Amino acid sequence: MKYKLKYSFLNSDLQLVEKELEAAIHADSSVLTEASLHLLQSGGKRIRPVFVLLAARFGDYDIHVVKHVAATLELIHTASLVHDDVVDDADLRRGSATIKSKWDNRVAMYTGDYIFARALEMMSEINNPRAHQILANTMVELCLGEIEQIKDKFNFEQNWRIYFRRIKRKTALLIASSCQLGAIATGADERIQRRLFRFGYYVGMSYQIMDDILDFTASEAELGKPAGSDLLQGNITLPVLIAMKNPALKEIIKTVHEEMLKEDMGAIIQAIKASGAIEQATRISDQYLEKAFRELEELPSNKARKTLSQIAQNIGKRKF
Amino acid sequence: MKYKLKYSFLNSDLQLVEKELEAAIHADSSVLTEASLHLLQSGGKRIRPVFVLLAARFGDYDIHVVKHVAATLELIHTASLVHDDVVDDADLRRGSATIKSKWDNRVAMYTGDYIFARALEMMSEINNPRAHQILANTMVELCLGEIEQIKDKFNFEQNWRIYFRRIKRKTALLIASSCQLGAIATGADERIQRRLFRFGYYVGMSYQIMDDILDFTASEAELGKPAGSDLLQGNITLPVLIAMKNPALKEIIKTVHEEMLKEDMGAIIQAIKASGAIEQATRISDQYLEKAFRELEELPSNKARKTLSQIAQNIGKRKF
Repeated sequence: MKYKLKYSFLNSDLQLVEKELEAAIHADSSVLTEASLHLLQSGGKRIRPVFVLLAARFGDYDIHVVKHVAATLELIHTASLVHDDVVDDADLRRGSATIKSKWDNRVAMYTGDYIFARALEMMSEINNPRAHQILANTMVELCLGEIEQIKDKFNFEQNWRIYFRRIKRKTALLIASSCQLGAIATGADERIQRRLFRFGYYVGMSYQIMDDILDFTASEAELGKPAGSDLLQGNITLPVLIAMKNPALKEIIKTVHEEMLKEDMGAIIQAIKASGAIEQATRISDQYLEKAFRELEELPSNKARKTLSQIAQNIGKRKF
Repeated sequence: MKYKLKYSFLNSDLQLVEKELEAAIHADSSVLTEASLHLLQSGGKRIRPVFVLLAARFGDYDIHVVKHVAATLELIHTASLVHDDVVDDADLRRGSATIKSKWDNRVAMYTGDYIFARALEMMSEINNPRAHQILANTMVELCLGEIEQIKDKFNFEQNWRIYFRRIKRKTALLIASSCQLGAIATGADERIQRRLFRFGYYVGMSYQIMDDILDFTASEAELGKPAGSDLLQGNITLPVLIAMKNPALKEIIKTVHEEMLKEDMGAIIQAIKASGAIEQATRISDQYLEKAFRELEELPSNKARKTLSQIAQNIGKRKF
C-alpha cells in the first residue's frame, strides 16, 4: 500500500524524492549500497515524505527545495529501522530478511550510521538554521525513545505514561517534524507550521497505537512477521497495558518470555483479544485522530488539507 | 596527556568546551548519561577541539561561537569510538571497560546514536550551510571507513592504497575538518581554510600511522589494552603491510586469527618489530608530518601557528 499510488497528484513529486533517495545511498562499497537499497526498496509507505510534500503546500511550494527535506526524513526513518532491527534481534522486516540477519549486526550498525550521515548531507542543502535544530532535536528524542524501549522491555509494571512518551519519541515526533519541516521549507506562516506539527503528532500517536494493535489482530502474511512479535520481544504496548488491568490476565501475560512456544503465545494473544483491550486501544487511537482532524479544520482549505484528511482517515481504517 | 595541560593559553576556552560537552550529553535516562559520560570523561586528549580552537584563531575569534564547533567534533569522535568498540568487540578503551562490555551492544549502539544526535544539536547553533555540508560529508566518509575496516579484516592481500584510504576516512578527514570548520566558524580567509584543512589531513595521517605503530611498540600499560590488538582483531595496518613484503614473514603473519594464544602472538609481534617495518612506517609518518609543517609555513605567523607546530612535533615524538 504505497501512498503514491493513492494520491496521484503527488506522483511526479514523489518520483523526484525516490531519485534523491537512491542517489543518496549509492556508495562505492557494494555491501553498503546493497544493504541500504535492500531496506529502502522493500516497500516502505513513504508516509513521511508524503507528509513533507503536503505540509509544504501551505507555503511557497518548490519541489526542488522540498524534495531534500522529504528524502531526509525518509532516510532518517530508514536508518532508525536498521538500528531497531539490531536491537530487536529481528529477522524479518516488511516481509523480507533484515540487514542484520542477511549480513550481521556490525554491518547493520554501520549501514544505519551511513544512512543517517547521508540524511544529514541531504539536509545540508536546506539553508535554515531552525530546520536543522528541529531535525537534530527530533533525532535526540528518537534515540531516547529507543533506549527507553530497551530499558522497559519485559517491564510489566510500567505505567501508561511511559508507553505514551515512548511512542511519542519513537514515532509521533518524526511525523510531526515531517509536517513542520515541510511547512518551514516553503516559508509557511508560523501558526500553520505549529498546527501542522500538532496534526502530525496526533496522527503519529494514532498510527503507532494502530500499529501496536495490528501486531495482535493482523495475520502473519499481512504483517510480514508473526503476530504478537512485539510482546514476544518484551515490548509492552497499549493493548497489553489495557489487558493487564485484569489481574488474572496480567499474571498470564507476565509469563511471556522470548523463548516461549508458539502455541503458548497464541493462547495469550487470544486472551488479550478476548479481553476488550483491542477495542479500548482502538478508541484511544481514534481520540488522537479526532484531535488531528480538529487541527486540520483550522488550516486553509486546499487540496493538501483534503489529502492529509484522507490519509488520517485511512490510518483509522487500516487493516495492516 | 591532555593537551589542555600543555597549552595553557587554551585552558579557559577548553574549559568552556568541556562544559558544553557535559551539558550536551546530560539525558533524563540515567543509563544513557552514565554510558555517555563514562567515555567522554575517560581521558580523551581533546585533540579535535584543540585543533578547532587553534584554527579559529586565524579568523575573527569568538569562543562563544567556536565552542559549539569544538564540542561537536569531540562528540562525533566519541560517538564513533562507541560504535567502533561494538564492531571491534573491544572490552577495553583508554584503559577502562567499554560501554559494550559494561552494558551490552544494543546500549552501545544507541549511546553512539544519541551522542551523534547531540553533536548535530550542538552544530545547529552554527548558521553556516557550508559548515553543515562539510560535517555531513565527513560523517559519510567516516562510516565508509568503518565499513571498509570490517570488510578488509584479515584480508592479508589488501594493497597499501586501501590502507591509506581507510585511515584517511577513519581519522585524517575528521581532524582536517576540525581545522577547516574552526577556520570557517570565524570567517578566516578561504585560502587559510584550505591550508588548515590540508595541515589537519597530513597531521591526521601521521597521527594514525603512529597509532598503528604504537600498537606494536608500546606496552600494555601505556596502551590501556594488549599490544598487537589491531592485528589480533584482523586490522591490517602499515607496519604489517610493510612486514609482509618479506614472503616468509607474510606466511607467518597470515596465521594470525582472533583466538590465537598470547605467546604465539608475541612471537609474531617480535618478528614484525625485527623486520624493520616499524622504522619504515615511522619514516612514512614523518613524511606526512613534513607536509603538515610545509602547510603551516604558509600560514600567518601567530601563537596559534606555533602551537599547531608544537602539537605536530609531539605527534612525531609521542611514545603512547
